[in-house]
Parts: sequence; structure tokens; C-alpha cells
Amino acid sequence: MHPMIDPKASVESIAKGLPASPGAAVGKVVFSAADAEKAAAKGEKVILVRPETSPEDIGGMDAAQGILTARGGMTSHAAVVARGMGKPCVAGCTDLNVDEKKKSFWIGSHTVKEGESITLNGTTGEVILGEVPLVQPEMTGDFNTIMKWADEFRDLGIRANADTPVDARNALKFGAEGIGLVRTEHMFFDAERVQAVREMILADNEKGRRRALKKILPMQRKDFIEIFKVMDGLPVTIRLLDPPLHEFLPKTDAELRVIARELGVTFKKLQARNKALHEFNPMLGHRGCRLAITYPEIYEIQVQAIMEAACQVTKKKIKAIPEIMIPLIADVNELTVLRKMTIRIATSVEEKYKVKIPYDVGTMIEIARAALLAHEIAPEADFYSFGTNDLTQTLYGLSRDDAGRFLPYYVEQGIFEEDPFMTIDQKGVGLLMKMAIDSSRKIKKDMKMGICGEQVDPKSVEFCYLVGLTYVSGSPFRLPVARLAAAQATLRKKKPKKFAEYSIA
Amino acid sequence: MHPMIDPKASVESIAKGLPASPGAAVGKVVFSAADAEKAAAKGEKVILVRPETSPEDIGGMDAAQGILTARGGMTSHAAVVARGMGKPCVAGCTDLNVDEKKKSFWIGSHTVKEGESITLNGTTGEVILGEVPLVQPEMTGDFNTIMKWADEFRDLGIRANADTPVDARNALKFGAEGIGLVRTEHMFFDAERVQAVREMILADNEKGRRRALKKILPMQRKDFIEIFKVMDGLPVTIRLLDPPLHEFLPKTDAELRVIARELGVTFKKLQARNKALHEFNPMLGHRGCRLAITYPEIYEIQVQAIMEAACQVTKKKIKAIPEIMIPLIADVNELTVLRKMTIRIATSVEEKYKVKIPYDVGTMIEIARAALLAHEIAPEADFYSFGTNDLTQTLYGLSRDDAGRFLPYYVEQGIFEEDPFMTIDQKGVGLLMKMAIDSSRKIKKDMKMGICGEQVDPKSVEFCYLVGLTYVSGSPFRLPVARLAAAQATLRKKKPKKFAEYSIA
Repeated sequence: MHPMIDPKASVESIAKGLPASPGAAVGKVVFSAADAEKAAAKGEKVILVRPETSPEDIGGMDAAQGILTARGGMTSHAAVVARGMGKPCVAGCTDLNVDEKKKSFWIGSHTVKEGESITLNGTTGEVILGEVPLVQPEMTGDFNTIMKWADEFRDLGIRANADTPVDARNALKFGAEGIGLVRTEHMFFDAERVQAVREMILADNEKGRRRALKKILPMQRKDFIEIFKVMDGLPVTIRLLDPPLHEFLPKTDAELRVIARELGVTFKKLQARNKALHEFNPMLGHRGCRLAITYPEIYEIQVQAIMEAACQVTKKKIKAIPEIMIPLIADVNELTVLRKMTIRIATSVEEKYKVKIPYDVGTMIEIARAALLAHEIAPEADFYSFGTNDLTQTLYGLSRDDAGRFLPYYVEQGIFEEDPFMTIDQKGVGLLMKMAIDSSRKIKKDMKMGICGEQVDPKSVEFCYLVGLTYVSGSPFRLPVARLAAAQATLRKKKPKKFAEYSIA
Repeated sequence: MHPMIDPKASVESIAKGLPASPGAAVGKVVFSAADAEKAAAKGEKVILVRPETSPEDIGGMDAAQGILTARGGMTSHAAVVARGMGKPCVAGCTDLNVDEKKKSFWIGSHTVKEGESITLNGTTGEVILGEVPLVQPEMTGDFNTIMKWADEFRDLGIRANADTPVDARNALKFGAEGIGLVRTEHMFFDAERVQAVREMILADNEKGRRRALKKILPMQRKDFIEIFKVMDGLPVTIRLLDPPLHEFLPKTDAELRVIARELGVTFKKLQARNKALHEFNPMLGHRGCRLAITYPEIYEIQVQAIMEAACQVTKKKIKAIPEIMIPLIADVNELTVLRKMTIRIATSVEEKYKVKIPYDVGTMIEIARAALLAHEIAPEADFYSFGTNDLTQTLYGLSRDDAGRFLPYYVEQGIFEEDPFMTIDQKGVGLLMKMAIDSSRKIKKDMKMGICGEQVDPKSVEFCYLVGLTYVSGSPFRLPVARLAAAQATLRKKKPKKFAEYSIA
């Protein structure tokens, strides 16, 4: 569903980075967000090239056709924001050397100056010199007819991952029956808000954190109001804050100095805080519900914003169905504590507005231990969403951002049948999912369960149907294929593969 | 079994770092390995204080009573080397600011200059001003009698983790019946050898890597010869190279410049290589068997060194029983490839020496997926060793090095019953181990299986006995307690806890 490079064009790439957001883009290179916005305002098509992106770059990213970064992985700021925008992005291109002062970059013997054209293939991670012809996707009448047929046959729900009202509208256009994942951190990365987030991070105590969070509350509430309006009557799964706090601080001393000035704190203090937040393995660190266990006020404010938004739109006859989702649960006790907190805040908002909201509290199943012990978690969760990206990462002990050095070789050599980040590893991840589904359904027969990873390829969709998930959720652009796959799966109605070793007692 | 702070002493700590290696140490602070060695040669007791340690510091670490670092986690160079040496270490003390030039450090308002005394409590991570009285452990006649009694009753094997001949002798003293884990990377960190390792890392192709590895071969062979001599007739489990390659390069540009000069390469080349090796989540990155799949020559040379050592000592009537262990297996295909390679090299060495060695090829079970799919792995493995540290990290999605920010709070609040890095999480990690053991034993009834994590506390030892492991392996200093716990477990002979959800088909 993205523009792609004309298969007839002959293409020679000069470097390969991570395929951080699919689709192809052509444009003249610019080296700052401001330049991207200026050029776009004049109607020029540009590619934003940065060492890495930060929240300040969002305007420029939005203005650009595509984004190219030297640093950052599949979950870096550039990658995540670009995927949300449906914009091609090549991230972590280690061969790329950016000279921001001279407004040029070099890759090996090739030097490219501002205003010269390049092409990005975000599907493969390739960087190509010059302009390559693209072909645009078409959604014709035939397409719509086929989609209608597919929807008549399938009995697997289809939702979209969407972080903004724009995303949500896109999701509906592509046939989503709800939002399976709103990542609230995107709302924190916005240039205006990230300031308040940084104030929170720098606060010495709960009071200071609450003061900063209060500034974010009305902004988040407004986001949710907009999303509920678009999704009127459809469920919206909202994941509370997930990334580690250091992701909201810049990396270099120079950038830290700017931020320190803006926040009115000493550079030394900011630097010390940044140092204290550093993690060896951020993927396995102080993030998700672990943040909320230590700083409950973060999730409290988020729940308040969600529920106030729901109450406000309800008064305007709009039906909000929030599903509040707690990420990174490894043990039921984490969920027990945070569910209690969520219900306490939600009830107090409902009482204040004198409105009843049909909200649910559930959790991501994305840590291998949570899947293994799902039977303990089920009583505390109204729904599950399998986060197949993180579940794959923890089950394999494999960082998606770092696997580029060996994973392609593994697939080439047949050591892994397929890249488990492209299609669900049915043998391992799938077995664990099936164990979790079966053991939980024994406790709650009709429990709502979906996936919100990025594996919504036809094979994974069929698998999700066969193991009995309620819905799959993916990027809006991938939904048509998922709808078709879901219909085909229903028509085939094969029994799920038998797993050899474990029968669920 | 370590010296500890006199429980009667009143102690006020000025900072807390990671409890990287247990026991207490008192000494005058020094700020370089050279100063530590000089002072120790004069009979002075010193504490080596460093921003972080690197292979060049090993002499100084050995000379010091204890080690204190500002950076680095529980598996940092300082932590791992100190534990191997049985030397107290506080690592990653983020409040510690080291001024190497002025030869002083400051923590909050306290400044400590070279020659002033401090006390470290490596068991708790505390840093204490001045000299605190210590009490020494005693191994008296009574102790030996109790140990003898324990050994008569227990039927769980006891092995030690030991990386050097000195460690191995220590292991025997503490009652080890074999070595459960030799970490070969320690042999690479030695100052003299790390140079060759760096040459290997910088090599542009296989030929260059082989040239560098050839320099390491005789040194590794000599290490193994010494260990086999000490362990004559007892099994020695040798884990092939595990850490990611970037651990062998220093972190700062200044250090890189020195290394570049030593290796005769340009700083730019070394810096580029260092940058290319950088990982976002090294714990989940290009390490263990993943290195050997992409660069088979690394393990080939290691297997050659092990087998040549075994053949050489055999000719001197010493019985070598090497168990060659492949780390970080996530899928049986990795083991299939590397087992084949191991047998090929081993056979060619046996033929060359005309000697038969009773060697085994097995694997660590430390990735959650390997444990879940153990029934696929069993046919390719002569033995398993459960790496409970990494298994805990991957199953929980929890980095031990980063968990310090929230894990103590989790335990305090009862969210986790206990720190899963201190005692095996029986509910999650234990369940997965039991599934792996049962499914594999159905295929190979008497398969040798042990653990080599750091959880050899009495509760974990009892668990290992009840689920049917062959042996436990831990730090030599912890073996007496493990022997006692194993005897008690046998005497109690309770049935293993029933796991609620999964019966093994």
C-alpha cells in the first residue's frame, strides 16, 4: 500500500541501513528539520538526512518524503515516528557520515550535497543515488469489491495501530474495526510537550513530577478526544507509556546544553541525570509498567486524561470505548497493582463527570514469562494484546536493532527458516502464544485477545485465526492484505498445527 | 566464605554501587593498576578505584584487596574478573566521580585522595569511608567433618565455575567434583592476548582473523593443559567464546588512540570498527554461538586448543574429560552446525595425536526459546547446562545490570517475592527448566544436566535436586553451602512442587 520503486528501474544502492519504515521516497536532501519545512512549503520534495532524529525534528519529518539516519534502530525515534506517519525511513545506516555544517553527507566515495537527489527504499533499507521512478499503489473499485467479499467471509477482527487522529482516519479508510494500539509516547515526543516530559524527568520528587505531568494532562486529553471522535463507537486500545525515560533526553553534550538552557537548569545537573538514566540494555530496562511501579503518577495522569476525554465526548453523544493497556508485565502482581490504580482513577473521573464509560483494563503479553504464566494473569486482565515484536525479542534473546549483523545470514543459511520479525515464529513464539491463549481461555472463555506486533503478513494472520485470537492489529497500510488473509484462513479452516510437546493440562 | 564486615562495627556508607563481587575489603585508594601493583609489592593493602576497568588493569586488580568502579554492570569487566578472583568489588557506583589526574575521587561532599583508606562491601555494594574491622571466614576441623557428612548423603553433583588453574585448585579445595563452567573469554582478556583478539576484530577477512587467532591458539592450549592437569580425571565444561566483540575494545577515544598506535592501524579505522560494533542491547546482540555462525574460525581455534591440550596431557597419563559447551543457542539448527564443526576439528586433532579423548559436545540452555523447544535440541546435545542468569534475563525481559533502579523496590513491595538473580524464580524460570528437563529426558533418559548460573543458594540447590538435575555449579566460595543444601534436600526428599498448568505430553 506504499509507493514502491518501479520494478523495471535499474537500481544501484550505495548503502544499506535498517528498513525502518516501508515504502520508497525520492527527494532532494536537506540536513535540518527547518530546511525540510521551508522546502516543503515551497512545494519541493525533500529527504531529511540526520545523524539521528529527536522530537524537535517532527515538523521536518512530516514535511519530508522520507527520512534517512545514521544512528538508531528499528525502535529509534526516526523509525517509530516514520512508521506512524506511514513515511519511508532508512535508519541506522552506519556507513552514512553526515556533515551538518557543510550540509553534505558521504558514504564510501560518494558525497552528496544539499539539493542533490536521492531515493530511499524503506522496505529494504537501501539508499540510492539520484531519482528512481516510483509506482504508486492504487485502490480502485476492484480493490474495494474484493475487500467487501473478504470482509463477508472472515471472522477474525481487524484493527489498526494508530497514534494520532490522522492515523485513526487512515485506519478507518483501510477497513479497521477499532484501534489495536495507540502508543502514547508519541504524544510525549511532540516538540512542545517533550519540554514538560523533560521537566518531569528532572524533578527531584513526586511533587515536581506531578507538576510537570499536569502540563501534559490537557494535551493528552485533547489527543484522546480527537481519536475517540474519529473512532466513535469502536474500541480504542491505549497503551500507557512504554519507553525508558532516557529516550526523551538528547544524546550529545551540545544538545544537552541547549535543553539545559531551555529548562533553566545547570548543564551539570542535566548531564548527571542523563548519566544516571543510562542503561546497558534499554530494551530490558526500566520501562513500561516498571516505570509506573516506581513512579505511579505517570500512569495516573495518563488514565485521568483518557477517562476525562471519554467522559467529555460521551456528553457530546460520541461513544468512547477505551481499552487501557498496561505494557511489559512479567508477573501478575504488577498488573494487580496497576489495575487497581487504573480503576481508582477511572471511577473518580466517572463520578466527577457523572458518566459511565465502558472501559476495559488489560495488558500486553510481550514478556516470555507473562505468556508462560498467563493463567495467573488472566483473572486480572479484561483483554490481552500479544506484543509479538517484544515477545520474539525476549524469547529469542535477540535485539531486533542489533540482529542486522547476523539475522540475514541466518535466514540465507537456513538456520532460521524465516526472519521472526517478519512473520511469527510459529514453532517457538507461536507455541508460547498458544499456551497462553489456551490456559487463559480455560479461566475466561471469551476473553478478548489480539496481536499488535508488526507481523500481520498472511501466514501470521492465518496463525492468529487458527489459535483463536479475536483480532489482529497492524499498520493501516497493511490491513487490506490482512483482511484478505483472514478471509482465506476462514475459508480454509484448517485445524491449527499440532504442537508436539506440551498438552495443556 | 569471604571476609565480611564485623557485624559489631558501626558503619556509614557514603554511596552504593552494584554488589559485583561479594566479601569486604579495606585498603588505601589508588587510581591506576600500576600504582596498585607498586603498592602491593611493598606489602600495602590497596583498593583500586577506576572509572571502569579494562584488560590492561588485570595485574592491578589482582594486586588490590578490592575494586571500585563508577561505570559498568554486574557483567562488566571489573565485576566478572573480580568474581573470578574471589575479590570484593563494587561496580557501577554512579555517584562516584573519579579524577585520575588529581588522584582523588569525590562522592557527594566527600573527597578521598590517594593513600586514604576506604572499605568496600562487595556483598551489598556499599562504599564506606575509613577502615572498618573485618572478620575472616574459618574452615576448621568441624567444618570439614560436616562437609564429609553432607557429601555422604547428597546425590546431587557439585561443580565449580572456574576460569584459571588457580580457580580450579580453589574449586577442588571447596569440594568440587568437576568444573561446570570455564569462561574462555577470560583467557582472551589477559593483557598480552587481548592485543591478538583486537587484531582479529580488526581483520578485514577470514584469513586475517585466522592469522590473529593463531597467535591465541598456543596460549589457550596452555591454559587448558594447566586446568586439565589440576582436574585430572574430573570433567571440565568449557564454554566457547560468549561476549560480543566490542567488549574487547576500550570505550573512550583516548584509549582507542593508544590501541591504534599499538596495533599499527589508523585511529580512524579503529574508531569506525568500534562504531560498527556498537550495539543497542549487547545482551541480546551478536554474541555466543551467533559469533561462531558468522565467524566459524573463532570456535574452530578454540576447539583445536581444547583438544590439543587434552591429547597432550593424555600422553602424560593425565585424564582430560572436556565437555565442550556452545552458548546462546536459540534454535537447534545453530547447535547442529556447530556440533558438526566441533566433531570435525576434534576428530582431526585426535587423529593427529593418535589419542582418543572422552569429550562431549553440549549446550547452554539460557535462551527462553531453547528451553521451550528443548525436545528439539536434546538429540544434538550430549549435555545441558542451564545458564540461569541469562535464562532469567530473557524470560523476564530484564537486564540484571539495569534492574538496580527498580528491582530492590519490587522486592520491598512484594511485587516479586524474591530477587530472581539471587534465587531461582521457581514459578517461571523453574517451570521452564522443568519443561525442558522432562521433554529432553523423554528422548535421552540419562542426559547430563546441570546449572552454572550464580543461584546456588540452598533453595535453588534443593529445586535443582528435585527437578532432577545431575549437578549444580557455582563460585568455589559458595560450594560448601551448596553441598550442605544438597544433602538436606536428599534427606527431605520432598516431591517437586506441582506446576499448575502444563503437563508434559
